[in-house]
Amino acid sequence: MRNFADILLAAIDKKQNPSVVGLDPRLDRIPDSIKEGKTPGEAILDFNKGIIDAISHVVPMVKPQIAFYEQYGADGIRAFIETIEYARSKKLLVLEDVKRNDIGSTAKAYAEAHLGGAFGGDAVTVNAYLGSDGVKPFLEKTSEGKGLFILVKTSNPSSGELQDKLLDDGRAVYELMAELVDKWGNDCIGERGYSAVGAVVGATYPKEAELLRKVMPRAIFLVPGYGAQGGGADDVVPCFNPDGYGAVVNSSRGVIFAYEKLGGEFDEAAGRAAEAMREDISKALKKADKWPW
Amino acid sequence: MRNFADILLAAIDKKQNPSVVGLDPRLDRIPDSIKEGKTPGEAILDFNKGIIDAISHVVPMVKPQIAFYEQYGADGIRAFIETIEYARSKKLLVLEDVKRNDIGSTAKAYAEAHLGGAFGGDAVTVNAYLGSDGVKPFLEKTSEGKGLFILVKTSNPSSGELQDKLLDDGRAVYELMAELVDKWGNDCIGERGYSAVGAVVGATYPKEAELLRKVMPRAIFLVPGYGAQGGGADDVVPCFNPDGYGAVVNSSRGVIFAYEKLGGEFDEAAGRAAEAMREDISKALKKADKWPW
Repeated sequence: MRNFADILLAAIDKKQNPSVVGLDPRLDRIPDSIKEGKTPGEAILDFNKGIIDAISHVVPMVKPQIAFYEQYGADGIRAFIETIEYARSKKLLVLEDVKRNDIGSTAKAYAEAHLGGAFGGDAVTVNAYLGSDGVKPFLEKTSEGKGLFILVKTSNPSSGELQDKLLDDGRAVYELMAELVDKWGNDCIGERGYSAVGAVVGATYPKEAELLRKVMPRAIFLVPGYGAQGGGADDVVPCFNPDGYGAVVNSSRGVIFAYEKLGGEFDEAAGRAAEAMREDISKALKKADKWPW
Repeated sequence: MRNFADILLAAIDKKQNPSVVGLDPRLDRIPDSIKEGKTPGEAILDFNKGIIDAISHVVPMVKPQIAFYEQYGADGIRAFIETIEYARSKKLLVLEDVKRNDIGSTAKAYAEAHLGGAFGGDAVTVNAYLGSDGVKPFLEKTSEGKGLFILVKTSNPSSGELQDKLLDDGRAVYELMAELVDKWGNDCIGERGYSAVGAVVGATYPKEAELLRKVMPRAIFLVPGYGAQGGGADDVVPCFNPDGYGAVVNSSRGVIFAYEKLGGEFDEAAGRAAEAMREDISKALKKADKWPW
């Protein structure tokens, strides 16, 4: 079984694009023509299929955020699972943004659910406030080619209330978390030197990202906060290693609802927005001599 | 609209029992006779109905753990939602153990899902690693009589890897989280002096609980770790205030799979185990002069 980091880097190479599109459907922003006569889940699925068809030539991975599906109960969860199936049928990797966390025996159920048969994602986001025994069941799935991204420094305004606090040895809480991520990732390094254990590091905190890049040299960063949340292309550059790898930048609303700004059909607009995002990031990386292709 | 803390305390008074039963179904431990000819979700729902019927006379609240339902995709989520409906029809409060967490706009979707129409729980567990803007959407639901329990010091063996670390001012990370919980709970104090914002404090760490009781005097503690995880009745006593309120103790496996040890029908065994748990806790609280009835 190939290591998830190798699988992801190969997909990034193929598209020459280290970016990911977040599938965060909001029913009130889905065009009426898509919604007519359908349950919320059916409408979301059809919307996602349109987006996936329009972006699959340009991005290596999609990141559905499960909260927007849970809102519609079992109908929404069905749409989430069928979105994953559809994305995989289009040769996209799927990172489930679920931020699951619990004690060991319960975390095992989550790992089985999301990285096993029921949902079938390629990777998940994990919140490690509970420490290693809540992370271990996800780690065990790395032997099956699965990946995880652990929250380290999140993109939201209040992330510092806990994550920035200094410990008695001078490190910030997010640095401690980063060291744990580096340790957990030790046993699942792929052929290209990156680990199947990645880290979530917000584009909105580029200085912290620079430090974190050194603490977790082999972790692939999932970088939210680009676009709608205010992070620009230059802000994501510190998340990349000198070799031009080591990060995937996410945009959700900025791509999937691009038609609201750009006009035209929702899917075509999303395709154009995904291409523009690739262009934007590539320019910034080239300027920093971090474009690998 | 009544405050969730008042609703919960009234339910505890009615049963004279500050305990809660965790509905964490594991298919391999559900009797074959319940599973025959059913989907996993249907079997889980029937199992839960049997448990609920057997315990509803003795406990004020149940706590379904969503991981064990997510394992079965949409079928499992349907069982989770129908379990909530059934429990509420039997006048039980329902605390959804979901440990959800995300940035503000996403946390809002989670709060709508679980404390709104789709799932309809009375309260949820929340992981606040992301700080206040991820908590706020749940807080807003307290005006609708809903509650939340924020992870402070969890019951698992590795909880200390992050939570016990000392900050540069000498406080542990869990103390900082406790102070945030106290602050967040300030604006939703009920008539009886307790807040709709509670805290998760493991029975496996009684010394930490003693300190945390002082830091969060008005928070109701959800106390996991009793029973299968190794915490005893004496260990939960520090979680209660001198008035005998301020905590609900959870047992999951020890009650719902009691038939494996006690023999007999699964539901009757669960009923007896729930009664025994009440008795066990009441003895310890009486000994400490913390039994309010």
